[in-house]
Amino acid sequence: MLKTRLTEKLRLRHPIISAPMAFAAGGRLAAAVSASGGLGLIGGGYGDADWLTQEFRAAGNQPVGCGFITWSLLKQPSLLDLVLANKPKAILLSFGDPLPLAERIKQHGVTLICQVQTRRDAERALACGADVIVAQGSEAGGHGEIRGGLTLVPEVADLIAKERPETLLCAAGGIGDGRGLAAALMLGADGVLVGSRLWASKEANVSAAMHEAALRSTGDDTVRSQTMDLARKLDWPRRYTARVLRNKFIERWHGREAELVAVADEEAAKYRAAWAEGDPDRSNTFVGEVVGLIQDIEPVADIIDRMVRDAEALLRSKAAALTTS
Amino acid sequence: MLKTRLTEKLRLRHPIISAPMAFAAGGRLAAAVSASGGLGLIGGGYGDADWLTQEFRAAGNQPVGCGFITWSLLKQPSLLDLVLANKPKAILLSFGDPLPLAERIKQHGVTLICQVQTRRDAERALACGADVIVAQGSEAGGHGEIRGGLTLVPEVADLIAKERPETLLCAAGGIGDGRGLAAALMLGADGVLVGSRLWASKEANVSAAMHEAALRSTGDDTVRSQTMDLARKLDWPRRYTARVLRNKFIERWHGREAELVAVADEEAAKYRAAWAEGDPDRSNTFVGEVVGLIQDIEPVADIIDRMVRDAEALLRSKAAALTTS
Repeated sequence: MLKTRLTEKLRLRHPIISAPMAFAAGGRLAAAVSASGGLGLIGGGYGDADWLTQEFRAAGNQPVGCGFITWSLLKQPSLLDLVLANKPKAILLSFGDPLPLAERIKQHGVTLICQVQTRRDAERALACGADVIVAQGSEAGGHGEIRGGLTLVPEVADLIAKERPETLLCAAGGIGDGRGLAAALMLGADGVLVGSRLWASKEANVSAAMHEAALRSTGDDTVRSQTMDLARKLDWPRRYTARVLRNKFIERWHGREAELVAVADEEAAKYRAAWAEGDPDRSNTFVGEVVGLIQDIEPVADIIDRMVRDAEALLRSKAAALTTS
Repeated sequence: MLKTRLTEKLRLRHPIISAPMAFAAGGRLAAAVSASGGLGLIGGGYGDADWLTQEFRAAGNQPVGCGFITWSLLKQPSLLDLVLANKPKAILLSFGDPLPLAERIKQHGVTLICQVQTRRDAERALACGADVIVAQGSEAGGHGEIRGGLTLVPEVADLIAKERPETLLCAAGGIGDGRGLAAALMLGADGVLVGSRLWASKEANVSAAMHEAALRSTGDDTVRSQTMDLARKLDWPRRYTARVLRNKFIERWHGREAELVAVADEEAAKYRAAWAEGDPDRSNTFVGEVVGLIQDIEPVADIIDRMVRDAEALLRSKAAALTTS
C-alpha cells in the first residue's frame, strides 16, 4: 500500500487515477479502475449525451468521475449538467481555460481536477480553485503539449507549495509501471494519472488490431501530430498535438498539413470509417511513449496491483539499498 | 551518500556526471565536479585542439573526462588522440554512430560513455560495447531529440537488462535537484548526467547576461529549434534540435528556417559575434526545461551537495512515509 495526500483526501486505496481517454475510457474501464482501488474517469471526449448516459450506467455502483476536453465542453455546456446529475466523484478538465466551468463543478461539491501542460496553465488552474492539478508531460498518448514530465511535475509542485499548498498534484504522461509511479512520487506528485497502460487493458474500448499494433511497438514508434485532428475536422487549438503510433496515415500526411486541410472533407469520411473499424493503418492508434514498456493486454486489476506493488518495493527495498552508508 | 553501480564501478562519491556542454564545460567546471565527488567532463564541442589542451591543463590533477559530438569528431579524429594522451577518466560520445571511435577508446582502457536519444540508439551503443549508456530526454538543454526521459530511461533499462546487464545507465535531461536524481534512480538509472543545473554554476564558462536570462525564465520559456545551427552553418544532422531560451533571435527565425539558410553567410557572422559577447538576445542561451527550478548561480560543490542530500532524504524519509502501512 502507498499512502499519499491523494489517497487520503480522495479516500482511494491507491494513488492512481485513470486518464479520461476519449472513446477508450468507457464506464467499464472506469469502474474497473475504481474497483481496483484507484479513481476511474469516463472519457467525455467530444461530447455525446447518449454515450455518456450509457457509460455512467455501465459503471454501475462504482464511484467514477468524468473528464472533458474543455474547449469542446464549452460548446455544449449542458453535458456538464448531465454528468453532474450522475453524481461523479470528480470532473477533470483539460485543454482550455477551466474558469467558465470551474465554479459550477465546485458548487456541486465535486472534486475539480485540472490537467495542465505548462506552468502557465498550472497558475490558471490554481486561480480557478482546482482541487487536483494533473501535470501532463509530452510523453503522454493522445492530446498534449511538449513539456517533459521530469521538469513539469517538480516545477508545478514548487508553484503549488508557494501559492496554495493544499492543492494535490498528479503526474501524467509516460507512467506505466511501478518505476514511473515511484519516480512521480519522488518528483513531488501525490499520485499519477495513467492513460496508455490502462488503454492496454481488457476493459478498454480499443480494437484488437490497435492493441496488437501497440504491442509490436517501442517508444521510438510514436509521434506527436496534428494530422488526425485536421483529417477529422476537429477544432483543436493549434498548441495541442496528439501522440499516436507512426503508421501509413502519418507517413502520408505528417508534414503535409496544408494539403490535408484542402482535402479534409473527403479524408474526414475515410478517416471516420477507418476509425469505426478500429483500423490502425488508416486511422490512428492513440498511445504514448510508454508503449515500449507494455508487453501484454491485461485486466485492469492486474495492471494496478503490479504497478503499486512494484512501486512499493522500489520505495522500500531499492531506496534502502541506495541509501545504505 | 548514495551507493549505486555507477559510484562503485567508477569509484565516485556521488552518482553524478556533468554534461560535456560545448563552450560552457571547461576544465574548471569539470574539475569542480570531480572534486565534489562526481565525474566532470570537459565539453569537446566542435573540436579545437588548443582549447582542449588548455582545458585539460585547467583541470589540474582532478580526474576528468571529455565528451564529444560524434559526427563532428569523425571529421577530425586526431582530437581523440589528443584527449587520450591526457589520460581522461572517461570519454562520452553523443550524436552520431559511435562505432568508428569506440574501439580506440576501449583499447586505451578508457570508460566509454554513449549518450543516446532513442531506444534504437541504445541498441547501437550496446553493440559498440558502451560501458555506460546515458539516456537523454527531450527536457535537456542544448542538442537532443524528442523522447521524454520518463519513458526512455526505463525502456533502455529493460533493454540493458536483457542484452548486457553489466552496462551502466544514467539519465540525462531535466535533472537539476534531488527530486530529479531520486526519480532517475527509481526509473532504473544508476546515476545522472547533469547539464543545465551545472551550467548555472560559478565555474561554468557562461556570460553573466545569459545566466541572468536563465534566472528570469520558467520551464515554459525554452524551445527546441534548428535555427541556431543554421545560423552558425553547422552541419548538424536534421534529427537533432537544440533547446534554448526563447528570445528575439528565436522569435525572428524559428519557423522561417528556409529564409535563414538563404542569408546564413551574413547571419553566421552576426551570430558568432553576438555569441562571443555572450549576448542572450542576438545569440542563444542553451539551457533545458529545468531552468524553471534554478534560482541562483552557485558553486558546483554546493549544487552537488544539496542534490545528493535532498535525494537521499527523499529516498529515506519520504519513501518510508509513503510506504508506512
